[in-house]
Amino acid sequence: MLDRFKVPKEDQIVITEESLRRTVTAIFEKMGLVPEDAANGADVLVTADLRGVETHGVSNKMADYVGLYTDGSLNPRPDWRIERESPGTAVIDGDHGLGIIIGSKAMDIAIEKARKVGVGIVTVHNSGHLGAVGHFAMQAAEADMVGMCGTATGASILPTFGAETRMGTNPISIAAPAREEPPLLFDAATSAIAGNKFRLAARVGADLLPGWISSKDGTPIMEPTQPPSAGEYHMLPLGGIREQGSHKGFGFALMVETLATMLSGVLPSMVNPSALARHYFAAYDIAQFTEVATFKANMDQMLRTLRDTKPAPGHDRVLYPGLAESEEELVRHANGIPLHREVVDWFDDLCSELTAPSLVRA
Amino acid sequence: MLDRFKVPKEDQIVITEESLRRTVTAIFEKMGLVPEDAANGADVLVTADLRGVETHGVSNKMADYVGLYTDGSLNPRPDWRIERESPGTAVIDGDHGLGIIIGSKAMDIAIEKARKVGVGIVTVHNSGHLGAVGHFAMQAAEADMVGMCGTATGASILPTFGAETRMGTNPISIAAPAREEPPLLFDAATSAIAGNKFRLAARVGADLLPGWISSKDGTPIMEPTQPPSAGEYHMLPLGGIREQGSHKGFGFALMVETLATMLSGVLPSMVNPSALARHYFAAYDIAQFTEVATFKANMDQMLRTLRDTKPAPGHDRVLYPGLAESEEELVRHANGIPLHREVVDWFDDLCSELTAPSLVRA
Repeated sequence: MLDRFKVPKEDQIVITEESLRRTVTAIFEKMGLVPEDAANGADVLVTADLRGVETHGVSNKMADYVGLYTDGSLNPRPDWRIERESPGTAVIDGDHGLGIIIGSKAMDIAIEKARKVGVGIVTVHNSGHLGAVGHFAMQAAEADMVGMCGTATGASILPTFGAETRMGTNPISIAAPAREEPPLLFDAATSAIAGNKFRLAARVGADLLPGWISSKDGTPIMEPTQPPSAGEYHMLPLGGIREQGSHKGFGFALMVETLATMLSGVLPSMVNPSALARHYFAAYDIAQFTEVATFKANMDQMLRTLRDTKPAPGHDRVLYPGLAESEEELVRHANGIPLHREVVDWFDDLCSELTAPSLVRA
Repeated sequence: MLDRFKVPKEDQIVITEESLRRTVTAIFEKMGLVPEDAANGADVLVTADLRGVETHGVSNKMADYVGLYTDGSLNPRPDWRIERESPGTAVIDGDHGLGIIIGSKAMDIAIEKARKVGVGIVTVHNSGHLGAVGHFAMQAAEADMVGMCGTATGASILPTFGAETRMGTNPISIAAPAREEPPLLFDAATSAIAGNKFRLAARVGADLLPGWISSKDGTPIMEPTQPPSAGEYHMLPLGGIREQGSHKGFGFALMVETLATMLSGVLPSMVNPSALARHYFAAYDIAQFTEVATFKANMDQMLRTLRDTKPAPGHDRVLYPGLAESEEELVRHANGIPLHREVVDWFDDLCSELTAPSLVRA
C-alpha cells in the first residue's frame, strides 16, 4: 500500500491482536452470528489488519457490516444452499449472508472438489461483501493448492471511453505456496484504486493521483487532486486512460464479472442495481499437476529471483506480491495492530452499547 | 488496437482471406507439418489478421516461425504427451511443438474434461509461441463454455521498482458467448504493451507513449519516445509506474506465470533462460453452472449495457472487449486483409523459394 494511505503515527493507537479478535468476534455474535461464523469473520478482518491491508480491515469495514446487520440487509444465519453442482463445480445462493463468512465455506468446497478431480470452482451470488479476496486464495495455498478468488459488486467504475459507471472494483487474487519463501499472494482491485481507498484517503487527508478518477462527464483527471465529494467524480479502471492500458483494467473487471456473476447465472449490478455481490473461488490441487515438493522448490527459486532483482534508482528493493504483507504480519503479530484513534473511539462506543469486551492497548 | 499501430493506407496491399489461408497452410506443410496441423496453424494466424490483431497475425509472426522450423528449434511433428492427468486436469509436454498448433489440441482436452466434471484445466510446457491467446479462449466459447488461456515465455518485463527484467509479456484472455451480441473476448498482455508492438511501432514509425518502457537502469520513461534499439531499454508492466498500478501489472504477470509455468511443474524463464513457453487453458462448462440460455441472455444484457454506455467527451462510443474485433472481422472477411507491402514482398520471395502458392490481391 502506498504510504499516502497509511494512518499517520500521531493518530495511531496500537491494539493487541488477541483483543481485536475477541472484540470483533463478540460484535459479530451480538449481530446474531453463531460463534464459529463470528470467529471466522473476525479472522478475515484481523488478518487483513495484521498484513497492513487497512482498506479491508476493521477500520473500513466493521461499521458497514454492523449497519447492514442492524438494518436487516444482511442475514446473520443464512440458509445458503448449493443450487447446481458437478464433480468440479458448485453454484451457491448465499441467502444474504456476509461474504467474509460464506467465503471460507465456499473455498472449503472448492478445495474438497479439487482433491477429487484436480480443480474445484465455486461461485456464490446473493451474498454480502467478501472482504480481502486474497484471504480465501490463501486458504487454498495453505492446503497445498493454488487458490484464486474474485468478487464483483456494484457499478462504480467507468468503462474505457465511458461517462457512466458500469463495473465494480472487481478485485481478483491468486495465492501459491513456497517452501521457504513467504507465499505469493497477489490481491488487487481491477480499478485504478480500491473503493475503500477513497475513505482512507479522506481520513488521512491524502491526494488522489493522476488517472485514478474522472470528472462527472467521464474525462479522466490527470493531475493530483483532493478526494471530491460523492457524486462529483467517477472511478477509472486500472490504467486510467486508454493509452496507459485502461482497456486492460476494463477487461480484467469483466473477467471477474464473467467468472463470478455470469457463472452464477445472475445479472451484474450494471443491469440489476439491487443485485448483491457475486464471488468466484478456484482451487487447483498442486499434487495432481506435479510433485508438491517440486512446485514449492520452483516457487522458492522464482520468488528469490524476484526479491534479489537489482532495484531501479530511487528504490531499495523489489517486492513480490505478498512479501511486504508477510513481513508486516510478523511485526504486527508481535507488536499489535495500529488503528486510527477515531476507529478506536468508534469501537469503544459500540462495545459499551453492545456490552462487548472493549479493545486493549498493546 | 491504437491507431498508431495500424499499417498506413499508402503501404497497404489487400489480400484475399482464402489466399492467405492457402499460402500460410502451404508454408507450414513445407516446414514439415501434417496438413491438419498446418491448416489449424494458418487458422490461428489468419483469424488474428481478420480481427485486426496485426500484432499476432502473419506480419509479425510468420517469419519467426519459418526461421525456428528451419533452424530446428521447433519440432514440426512433436510427440507431445500427457505427463500427469486427473478427471479435471492435464499437464502436457509439448516436445518443442509450436504453441499455435498444440493450443487447439490442449483446449480440446480442457473442453472434454469440462464436459465430464464441469471444468477442465490443461497446462503445457516445452512448447513454442502460442500466438493470440484469445483464439483458444474463443474455441471454448464456441463450445458453450467460458474459455481462458494464458502464456508465459521469456523475461523481457521489469518487476515494479526493478532494474532487471523478470517476466514475459504473459498475456491472458477470457471469452464468453452471448446469444445476439458478438462474444466477449478479452485478450491482453500483462505488460504495458505487447512485445510485438515494438516491431509494429518500428515498422510504422510510431512513438511509444509515457510509461511503456524504462531506460536501461530501470527508470520509467515518462514522455513520448521513438522505439530505442535493442538493449537500450526495458519494458514495463501494465500501469508503468507504481502510482499508476504497475504492481498490478506485475501481479497479473505472476498470475499467468503461476498458472502456466508453476502448474506445469517447471521453472520460469527468469530462472531458466532456455525454458520454452508455458501455456494455460481453462474451460468452464456453462451448462453445469446455469442454463446456457440464461447465461447467454445475461451476457446479451451486460454487453448491450456496455455498448449503450454514454461516451465521455471526445469519444464516439464505448467498446467492450472483442466488439471492435468482431466488427473488423466482418469487414475483412468480405473485403480481404490489408498487409504491409514489405510483408507481401517477404511472402512473395518465400513462396517462390518454397514453390508455395503466392498471395492473391483482393
